[in-house]
Amino acid sequence: MISPFDHPLLAGLLGDAEMAALLGIEAELAAMLRFEAALAEAEAELGLVPAESGSAIAATLAGFRPDIEALGEGTARDGVVVPELVRQIRQAVGEPHSNHVHFGATSQDVVDTAMVLRAGACLDLLEARLAALASDFGDLARRLGDRPLTGRTRMQAAIPIRAGDRIESWRAPILRHLERLQAVRSSLAVVQFGGAAGTLDGFGDKGPALRSALAARLGLADAPQWQSQRDRFADLAGWLSLVSGTLGKFGQDVALMAQAGEVELAGGGSSSAMEHKRNPVDAEMLVTLARYNAVQLSGMHHALVHEQERSGAAWTLEWMILPQMLMSAGASTRLAITLIGRIEAMGSQPPAS
Amino acid sequence: MISPFDHPLLAGLLGDAEMAALLGIEAELAAMLRFEAALAEAEAELGLVPAESGSAIAATLAGFRPDIEALGEGTARDGVVVPELVRQIRQAVGEPHSNHVHFGATSQDVVDTAMVLRAGACLDLLEARLAALASDFGDLARRLGDRPLTGRTRMQAAIPIRAGDRIESWRAPILRHLERLQAVRSSLAVVQFGGAAGTLDGFGDKGPALRSALAARLGLADAPQWQSQRDRFADLAGWLSLVSGTLGKFGQDVALMAQAGEVELAGGGSSSAMEHKRNPVDAEMLVTLARYNAVQLSGMHHALVHEQERSGAAWTLEWMILPQMLMSAGASTRLAITLIGRIEAMGSQPPAS
Amino acid sequence: MISPFDHPLLAGLLGDAEMAALLGIEAELAAMLRFEAALAEAEAELGLVPAESGSAIAATLAGFRPDIEALGEGTARDGVVVPELVRQIRQAVGEPHSNHVHFGATSQDVVDTAMVLRAGACLDLLEARLAALASDFGDLARRLGDRPLTGRTRMQAAIPIRAGDRIESWRAPILRHLERLQAVRSSLAVVQFGGAAGTLDGFGDKGPALRSALAARLGLADAPQWQSQRDRFADLAGWLSLVSGTLGKFGQDVALMAQAGEVELAGGGSSSAMEHKRNPVDAEMLVTLARYNAVQLSGMHHALVHEQERSGAAWTLEWMILPQMLMSAGASTRLAITLIGRIEAMGSQPPAS
Amino acid sequence: MISPFDHPLLAGLLGDAEMAALLGIEAELAAMLRFEAALAEAEAELGLVPAESGSAIAATLAGFRPDIEALGEGTARDGVVVPELVRQIRQAVGEPHSNHVHFGATSQDVVDTAMVLRAGACLDLLEARLAALASDFGDLARRLGDRPLTGRTRMQAAIPIRAGDRIESWRAPILRHLERLQAVRSSLAVVQFGGAAGTLDGFGDKGPALRSALAARLGLADAPQWQSQRDRFADLAGWLSLVSGTLGKFGQDVALMAQAGEVELAGGGSSSAMEHKRNPVDAEMLVTLARYNAVQLSGMHHALVHEQERSGAAWTLEWMILPQMLMSAGASTRLAITLIGRIEAMGSQPPAS
Repeated sequence: MISPFDHPLLAGLLGDAEMAALLGIEAELAAMLRFEAALAEAEAELGLVPAESGSAIAATLAGFRPDIEALGEGTARDGVVVPELVRQIRQAVGEPHSNHVHFGATSQDVVDTAMVLRAGACLDLLEARLAALASDFGDLARRLGDRPLTGRTRMQAAIPIRAGDRIESWRAPILRHLERLQAVRSSLAVVQFGGAAGTLDGFGDKGPALRSALAARLGLADAPQWQSQRDRFADLAGWLSLVSGTLGKFGQDVALMAQAGEVELAGGGSSSAMEHKRNPVDAEMLVTLARYNAVQLSGMHHALVHEQERSGAAWTLEWMILPQMLMSAGASTRLAITLIGRIEAMGSQPPAS
Repeated sequence: MISPFDHPLLAGLLGDAEMAALLGIEAELAAMLRFEAALAEAEAELGLVPAESGSAIAATLAGFRPDIEALGEGTARDGVVVPELVRQIRQAVGEPHSNHVHFGATSQDVVDTAMVLRAGACLDLLEARLAALASDFGDLARRLGDRPLTGRTRMQAAIPIRAGDRIESWRAPILRHLERLQAVRSSLAVVQFGGAAGTLDGFGDKGPALRSALAARLGLADAPQWQSQRDRFADLAGWLSLVSGTLGKFGQDVALMAQAGEVELAGGGSSSAMEHKRNPVDAEMLVTLARYNAVQLSGMHHALVHEQERSGAAWTLEWMILPQMLMSAGASTRLAITLIGRIEAMGSQPPAS
Repeated sequence: MISPFDHPLLAGLLGDAEMAALLGIEAELAAMLRFEAALAEAEAELGLVPAESGSAIAATLAGFRPDIEALGEGTARDGVVVPELVRQIRQAVGEPHSNHVHFGATSQDVVDTAMVLRAGACLDLLEARLAALASDFGDLARRLGDRPLTGRTRMQAAIPIRAGDRIESWRAPILRHLERLQAVRSSLAVVQFGGAAGTLDGFGDKGPALRSALAARLGLADAPQWQSQRDRFADLAGWLSLVSGTLGKFGQDVALMAQAGEVELAGGGSSSAMEHKRNPVDAEMLVTLARYNAVQLSGMHHALVHEQERSGAAWTLEWMILPQMLMSAGASTRLAITLIGRIEAMGSQPPAS
Repeated sequence: MISPFDHPLLAGLLGDAEMAALLGIEAELAAMLRFEAALAEAEAELGLVPAESGSAIAATLAGFRPDIEALGEGTARDGVVVPELVRQIRQAVGEPHSNHVHFGATSQDVVDTAMVLRAGACLDLLEARLAALASDFGDLARRLGDRPLTGRTRMQAAIPIRAGDRIESWRAPILRHLERLQAVRSSLAVVQFGGAAGTLDGFGDKGPALRSALAARLGLADAPQWQSQRDRFADLAGWLSLVSGTLGKFGQDVALMAQAGEVELAGGGSSSAMEHKRNPVDAEMLVTLARYNAVQLSGMHHALVHEQERSGAAWTLEWMILPQMLMSAGASTRLAITLIGRIEAMGSQPPAS
C-alpha cells in the first residue's frame, strides 16, 4: 500500500480505477494465461505438439486460477513469475500433456506479450479519454472562448487575448497526441516470441509460422522477436509523458488563473485550517502527474541499454516504471475531464450580462 | 496492486516487508494520530485548550480507528487527508471538546511531521542493515579476500588484484553512508509546525513554546516551520539513492563476475526455458533498484521548487516518490545482505588447496 | 569550454563536428536572420509593410554580421537575444525602413522557428547516419553473422546463437527509428508565428495568409502558433534518446563481448598505466551518451509544463538541453559507425579456417 | 559553442564567469600538472624515483604548456587525456628522467584528483556566495520584512503574513546548506591515488606513505583509493542541486509575486514585441537552473553503478554532467544575489508613507 496508485488514501486522488483494472493482477494473469493457451493451440495447429495436448491445455487454462502466493515466492526466487506459473499450469494440466505447456517459449515471450496486450487495452482507454478531452475543450471554447483574458508571457501581463486562445493551446496538442497514438500503437501491438535466446530454437523451420499463428490468435501483428530491443516500450512511455505533460500545462494554467481570479471552479478541495478556502486540487494534481511522468520517462530510456539477449536488470526496471506511467497518464486524463467540467467562468473581466 | 512494492507477484522480489510495515497505511495513520494527540496535550499544557479537552482528545485517539474509505474520499476531494481525518476525530471526540482537535494546526503540520516520524523509523532499519552489510563485507573479505582476481578497468582485464580489493570497494562507501546518515537524520528529525500559513497564527506569544512542547512529545527536535523548504526531504532522498547506488555497483560487479565464472553463488533463479541455468537475480535487482532510485531522486529535487507558503503540486510529488525511494533502499539492503550470504567462492583462479 | 561538446579535450571524444556546425552560433544567427528576411518579404508581399522596406530589409540582412558581444549582453538583460538583435538589424537597415523590421513578430517566433530550421538540418544528418548504420550492420551480418556466439540471458550463458542474431538486435531498431523519424519530422517542420501573445495581433485579417507565406519562404509547413505547446520539441527529444539508447545497447554488448574475448576490435584506446591494454572506448562512449540522453529527456518533458502564453523558465530549459541532445545523438551515430568499422572478428569460437 | 555555459549568446544569461574560470581548460590542465609535479616530488622524497628526477620533472612542469590540440586527439583515441598528456610531459622532461614521470600512477588518479582540486575551489566560491545570500536575505528582511503580504497556499490566498515570513523561507535553507557544505567538503577533499588497478602496485610497502605525502603536497586529506566508489561526487552533486533548488523556489516566488504586483523590481528584461513590458528574467532563470540541476543529478547517481575497478562509461558520464552542475549552481547564486539587489518593494499592500 506504498504506491500512490494503490494507496488507500491516495488512490482516489492520484489513481484511476478504470486503468487499475486493466493493469492489476487479475488482468496480468489473464494476459499471461491467454498467451499460454494461444501458444498451445498454435503449436497444435502446426503439429508441434499433439492436437489433444493443445486442446487439453487450452481447456485447463480456461478455468485455471493460479496460486498467487506461490507465484510471488517463485518470482522472488527466479526474478520472473513464469517458471512457477508454468509449473502450476503443468500440474493442473497433468499427464500426458504437461510437457507441452509453454513448449519452446521463454519467460520473456510471456511477460512482454502480456504487457503488450494490457498496454493495448490501456491505450484504448486513453484514446477514448483524449477524444473526450478534445471534445470537451471544444465545448469549453464555444461556451467561454469569447471572454477577454489577459495574455501573459514570462509571468507578466502582455496583451489581451480571448479565453479561447488559451483553451486552444490546451486542445491542439491533444489532437496531435491522438495522431501520434496510431504510430505508437502500431509499433507496440506486436507479439514477442523468440524462445530461450530469441532464435525460435526447437521449432525447426516452423518457427516463423508458429509466431505468426500465435500473433493472429492474440490479435497482434507478427514481427521478429524484439526481446532485447526495448524501443517499443520506451516509445510508449514517451507518448504517455507527452499526454500527462500537456495536461500538466492545462493544470498549471488553471492554478495560476485561480490565483489571479481569472477562473471560477465548482467544488474544489477544502482546507483543515481555513474553512472558507477552495483549492484547485485537480489542477495541481495535473502538474504533479506531469512531473511524475517526466521523471519516470528517464528510467524507461535507461532501460534501452538492455545488454545481450536478455537483461534482468533493465527488464525489471521497466516493470517498476511502465505500469505507473500508464496509471499516471490515466489519472491525468481522468482529472482533466473532471476539471474542464468544473470550469464555470473564465476570463479577466467577464462581460456584464 | 500496480506498484512493484505492493504487487502480489513482485513484492517478494523487489519489496521489503519490514520497510513496508513502517510505511504502510497503519503506520501512516498511527503517526498522524500521534501528532494530533501530542498537539492536544501540548496545547492543554500551555493552556491553549482546556486541560480536560487535551485529555479527552488524547484518550479518544488512543483507541481511534478511522474510516479509511471515507479518508480516501476526503483525500480525493481535498487533495490531502487531514480535513476529513480531523472531521472524523472531532466526531469521535464529541462535544464539548471537538473544536479543540487540531487547534491552530494545518494539514502540512500533520502530514510532514508524520512523514518525519515514519522516515525516522525507516532510517533506524536502514542503519541496522548498513551496519550488518559493513560487517558482512568484512567477513567476506576475511573469508575470500586473499583469492586472486583479475582487476578490470574499462571492461578489460588489467592487472591481478585480490578479491579483497574489490570487496573493499563495496564496503568502504557503506561506512561513509553511515557517517552521512547522522547529518541526514539531524536535518530531518524536526517537527513541522506552523499553522495555516506558517506563522503560528492564533497562538499569540505562546506559538514557539507550543511548537517546542509538541516536538518534545514526539521525540523530535524543535525548529521553525519549514513547510515550503523541502531540503530536508530532498537531502534524505539523496542519501537513499547513495545507498542503493553503492549496492548497485556491488550487484553489477557480482553479475559480471558470474558471467566470467569468477563467483559461485548458492541458489539463484531458475529459467522457464533452460532447466540448468542459475541466474544471479539478487545481483541484477540491486542494479535495477539503484537505477530506479537514481531516476526518482530527480523528482524529489524538482519538488524543491515549492512555490509560496504551500505548493499542492510539489508537495504531492514528494508523496508519489519518497516512500518508494525508502522502499527501494530497503529492498537494496535486504537483497545485498542475502547476496553476500550466497557467495561461496570468488576469484579468477581459486588456489589449489 | 565547460560542456563536453565544446571542450578542447573532450569534443573529439564525445562531440560531433558535423553536428556542431549545424548547431553553432553561426548557424543559429543565420537561421534567425533568415526568419527576419523571410518575414519582411512576406509582409511586403501582402502589403503589410512597404515593398521597398521588404527589399531593403532582405538586402541588408543578406550581408549582415551582428555584434555578437552586444547580443550576449542583450540576452543577459532580456532573457532572449531577439530584442537586441532586432535593435541591431533596425540600425543597419536605417530609416525609413527600420520600423518595418520584425513587424508584428515576437521573440518566440524567431527563436522557435530558427530552432526548427536547425533541427531539420540535424535530422537530415541523423537520417543519413542511421541509413549508413542500417547498411553497415547489414554488411557486418553478411561478413560475420554465421559465427557462433554464446547467447546470454541475465548475464549468464544461455544457448548458442549466431553472431548475426545479435547483430540483428542492433539493426532492427534502427529501421524503426528511421520510420519514426518521418512522423517526428512532420510534427516538427512547421513555422512558429503568432506575434506578441500568439494571436497574430496587428495583422488584421491577413494574419493567417502572412503565416502561410512565411512558412512557404522558409520551406516549412504552415500551422497555427504553438508557442506554449512544446510537444513538438519533446517528441523530437524522445526520438533522439531512442536513437542513442539503441546505440547504447550496441556499445554495452560490444564492451561485454570485448571482456569475454568474443570480439576483436582494430585500434582502441591506450592506458597511461598499462602499455599493452586496448580499451573499447567507442563502445563505452555509446553507453555514456545513451545514459546522458536518457537523463536529459526528462528535462524536455518537464518543459511541457509551459505556463500561460510564454514561460521564460520552461522555454530556457529547452535551450539548455535540446542542443546537447542533438549533439549526443550525433556523436552516438558517429561513434557507432566507427565502431562497426573496427569489428574484425566476432563470436565465441571462430570456426577453424 | 553548444552548451549554454559556453555559448556566446547564453553565457551571460545562464553562465558564471567566475565559476567558468575555475572549471575551464586552463584550470583543468593546471590541476593535472600540479598532480604530476606533486607526485614526482613525493616519489623523490620517498626514494621511489631519483631526487634529481623529481626536481627536473617539477621544474619542467612549472613552465609547461601542453599541446592542447594533440591532447584532444589523444582523448578521442584513448577515452581519457592522460596517456597523451604524460607522453607530452615525458618528451618535455627528456632523458634520463622521462620514465619517472607519472610513475606508478594511472589516469584516474590524475583526473579524479584534479577534479577534486577544482571542485574545492568552486566550493570556496559557492560558500562565499551563500554567505552573501544569507546576509542579503537578512538585509532584505530588515528593509521590507514588515510589509504585509498575502500568504498563499495551493496557489490560493490563505491568510495575511509578513513579507519577512516569506523571506525567511528563502534564507533558512541557505544556512542549512552552509552547514551541509562542511560534510560535503570533508568527504570530497581527499586525494585519489591507487595506480593501475587501485592497489598501489609497484610501490612495495611505500604505497601508503607515498599517497599520504602526495595528499599533503596537494592540500588534500589522505584516504585509500576510491576510484570505483563515486559517492563523493554524487554527494557533491546532490548538494549543488539543493542549492539551485532552494534558489529556484526563490525565483518562482518572485515571478509569481511579479505577476500579482506584489514585488517591484529595478531593471528587468525587455520584450521585442512590447516596449513597455519588464520581465523578471533573473527570477525565471533561477527556476530554469533549479530544474536543470534536478534533471542532471539523476545522471550522477546512475554513475554510482561503476563496474569493476574502472568504468569508462560511468566515469565519462560524470564528466558530462558534474561541471555543468557546478556552473549551474554558480549561476544560480550569481543571479540570486543580483535579484535580491533588484527588489525595491514587496508586499500586497505597501503601507501609505
